[in-house]
Amino acid sequence: MGAPSVSYSITVRLEVPAGGRAVSGITHHVEHAGGVVTALDVNTAATDMLGIDVTIATRDTAHAEAIVGVIEGIEGVKVHKVSDRTFLMHLGGKIEMKSKVPLRNREELSMAYTPGVARVSMAIARNKEDARRLTIKRNSVAVVTDGSAVLGLGNIGPEAAMPVMEGKAALFKRFAGIDAWPICLDTQDPDEIVRIVQCIAPGFGGINLEDISAPRCFEIEARLRELLDIPVFHDDQHGTAICVLAALTNALRVVRKDLSQVRIAMAGAGAAGTAILKLLLHAGARDVIVCDMHGAVHAGRADLDESLGWIAANTNAAGYDGDLKGAVKNADVFIGVSAPGILDGDDIAGMASDAIVFALANPEPEVSPDEAREHAAVVATGRSDYPNQINNVLAFPGVFRGLLDGGARVVNRDMLVAAARALAGVVTDAELGPNYIVPSVFHPDVTTAVAAAVREAAGGGTEPVEEPSA
Amino acid sequence: MGAPSVSYSITVRLEVPAGGRAVSGITHHVEHAGGVVTALDVNTAATDMLGIDVTIATRDTAHAEAIVGVIEGIEGVKVHKVSDRTFLMHLGGKIEMKSKVPLRNREELSMAYTPGVARVSMAIARNKEDARRLTIKRNSVAVVTDGSAVLGLGNIGPEAAMPVMEGKAALFKRFAGIDAWPICLDTQDPDEIVRIVQCIAPGFGGINLEDISAPRCFEIEARLRELLDIPVFHDDQHGTAICVLAALTNALRVVRKDLSQVRIAMAGAGAAGTAILKLLLHAGARDVIVCDMHGAVHAGRADLDESLGWIAANTNAAGYDGDLKGAVKNADVFIGVSAPGILDGDDIAGMASDAIVFALANPEPEVSPDEAREHAAVVATGRSDYPNQINNVLAFPGVFRGLLDGGARVVNRDMLVAAARALAGVVTDAELGPNYIVPSVFHPDVTTAVAAAVREAAGGGTEPVEEPSA
Repeated sequence: MGAPSVSYSITVRLEVPAGGRAVSGITHHVEHAGGVVTALDVNTAATDMLGIDVTIATRDTAHAEAIVGVIEGIEGVKVHKVSDRTFLMHLGGKIEMKSKVPLRNREELSMAYTPGVARVSMAIARNKEDARRLTIKRNSVAVVTDGSAVLGLGNIGPEAAMPVMEGKAALFKRFAGIDAWPICLDTQDPDEIVRIVQCIAPGFGGINLEDISAPRCFEIEARLRELLDIPVFHDDQHGTAICVLAALTNALRVVRKDLSQVRIAMAGAGAAGTAILKLLLHAGARDVIVCDMHGAVHAGRADLDESLGWIAANTNAAGYDGDLKGAVKNADVFIGVSAPGILDGDDIAGMASDAIVFALANPEPEVSPDEAREHAAVVATGRSDYPNQINNVLAFPGVFRGLLDGGARVVNRDMLVAAARALAGVVTDAELGPNYIVPSVFHPDVTTAVAAAVREAAGGGTEPVEEPSA
Repeated sequence: MGAPSVSYSITVRLEVPAGGRAVSGITHHVEHAGGVVTALDVNTAATDMLGIDVTIATRDTAHAEAIVGVIEGIEGVKVHKVSDRTFLMHLGGKIEMKSKVPLRNREELSMAYTPGVARVSMAIARNKEDARRLTIKRNSVAVVTDGSAVLGLGNIGPEAAMPVMEGKAALFKRFAGIDAWPICLDTQDPDEIVRIVQCIAPGFGGINLEDISAPRCFEIEARLRELLDIPVFHDDQHGTAICVLAALTNALRVVRKDLSQVRIAMAGAGAAGTAILKLLLHAGARDVIVCDMHGAVHAGRADLDESLGWIAANTNAAGYDGDLKGAVKNADVFIGVSAPGILDGDDIAGMASDAIVFALANPEPEVSPDEAREHAAVVATGRSDYPNQINNVLAFPGVFRGLLDGGARVVNRDMLVAAARALAGVVTDAELGPNYIVPSVFHPDVTTAVAAAVREAAGGGTEPVEEPSA
């Protein structure tokens, strides 16, 4: 049973008799029912009654309903309306378009639009590269999804994906000043997705693919990288991989082990797992066993598709053919991007000394973080209610900031490793510890450090915006 | 030779000896060369010299260069840098994405993004219509072009179209509070354009097609209207048609003639001309002759394609088969959306008494407005330096505001006529006159009047944004 969370917060508008202990009674009853009163505003005060808005953090929808029932049962209290704070925040959408130029009078119109804009268009028609100087291309990213694998919610389609993609766009702006716009596609055909992204690319400086299910995401990304002259980044793969490599780098600093020497057991061979694996190998890991739901991936398995075949050829040199629990035994590192509760405390106890456990399945990790922490030296999850949250927000804003500032046309694995090392480096030796291997997403250095590393790896300095001459 | 214009404005940074008449000398020389000094700022004042930024409106690029040459020739003046104000305004693009929600701390993140956003997405997955309530769909429009007919510049491609589409997006926000985003497509294949717009539609509440060349624009628009459940509007056709019908309505008020009684001669049978014609007929016009570059369109012509065939069948009942000049003779109204200088003052003199002339070719009208005004009662153009400018900004913001507020799924001709009548109605009887048949684009009532008419014609009241319950 989770703790009350602000993401299940409700505001109850109610009426109570004035005077007496009605108000404190409400707070008391809510807390007794397991809720947390986070705000209480009197909006109407008459001689005989008070109108009050009470905001309450609850555990989930059922819990919220139960608490409203408790309040309704209090003598003299009348509930008028129950609002859901999360839904209220999403009403009308979370982003907007804003003009950067004033349009106060006819003269300003004539510069921003016709006739003045014609000269700007002709300058780009003569030299297409000027689009990076004279349009939003320099600072804009398309957040593209087909709604096929939205968060952990599955194939819920493009409309239902919109709130997530709007949120992603808001994060791009908040953490990196980037102008992102959601493009939610009503097709799940890889050929169509590739062609559409190719056709909309002129107006964007980068493409962030998001929540597209495997294995289609691999093909879509690979083909787009071939076709486009702007960087293409599938955040579910590479953003996650950067964060895991950064966190592992620091976890290894904590336990004083070396990436090239440790044995790593992984659970999950989907989009995220494969990307993590490839980045770990590129960064120097040499002893990895990857397990999927059928057990360890090894060359002798009959069910290997192209992706699993690559894994078999590049990991598990000894040809281990057992299950995950066997792979975890004596391993230095466990990294899970798979399913809830597939390991228990005994499995973690059986790992090498000073074990590192990244149980990233969300919202329920591969192993209970509490049990894992009894046996492992460092534990990380994808959850915000435990220390060491592995959160892609640590990576993608800075990565795209660096790509755009460097005028990058591609993303390569050296850039991803550079981003991970820069992210790890934000945690100083003095700060580093088992419960602080990644910085807070609000740490002011995260985006700038990641961006600088990516820009440098892209081989670009900044292209300063120059004033054009007449 | 045009007048100096702010859209060809330059800022010259220069150094002059301190003291003496150097500054007034500059202003004098610029004005002698035909420029207008609109600003003069001293940015550095040393004992022996002044650094000055002089902003000068010029006629065109060559004129700007000539004026800079004149300044360089003044004794003691040193020119450091010449900047183009229009280009400066476009640097880095003209629009941005902005978050409407605060993301100050982890709690706000957890409502706007994971885990809170998951509940909002699931609500839409259960009921797709909720996307209009819980995402930006309700207020967002895609401005879609293939760059094939940008302004009067021709087929300059998607990158060069971006400054125009960004400008359009800025106008949508400025005049109607709508969040528009430019989608400039790197394909000119109608099948692909239709399919792409269909696939990106989930995130938008309307589609504004822009600067797509005829006849492809007809097919693309018609097919999209069949396929989509959001309104599709080709501004070059219907926005222009609304403005022309509004202006003609008021011009007829000025001369006290009736639309159903007047003879109308039109020049131009492209996208705009055809849309204007259809709207005029829908609004009650009965006697129209349309001419293209081969003369009057009539049923006997051998070169009639589908569009010209429709025109022949619905106009020119008498089968007139002469040229434009003959069609204009004795006509009450001339409407040109064609080519510069195809009529002269004598042609206008040969029209019926109290003639109305809309010479909308840009930047050079079908007949000199000065000559036309000698013989016609009312003259309108597309230019901002004459009275009665027919400008699409009068229509499209209000049209989309009304469509979005009414939750419209289609646009039909009744809505366009309603928009035109509302636009005409903004000009009161007291204001109406030969030089004031359309309101200023900055008139505060334009958008609200057009929006209300369209919303009503769409059969929708507003769908108020309701607070959802838990």
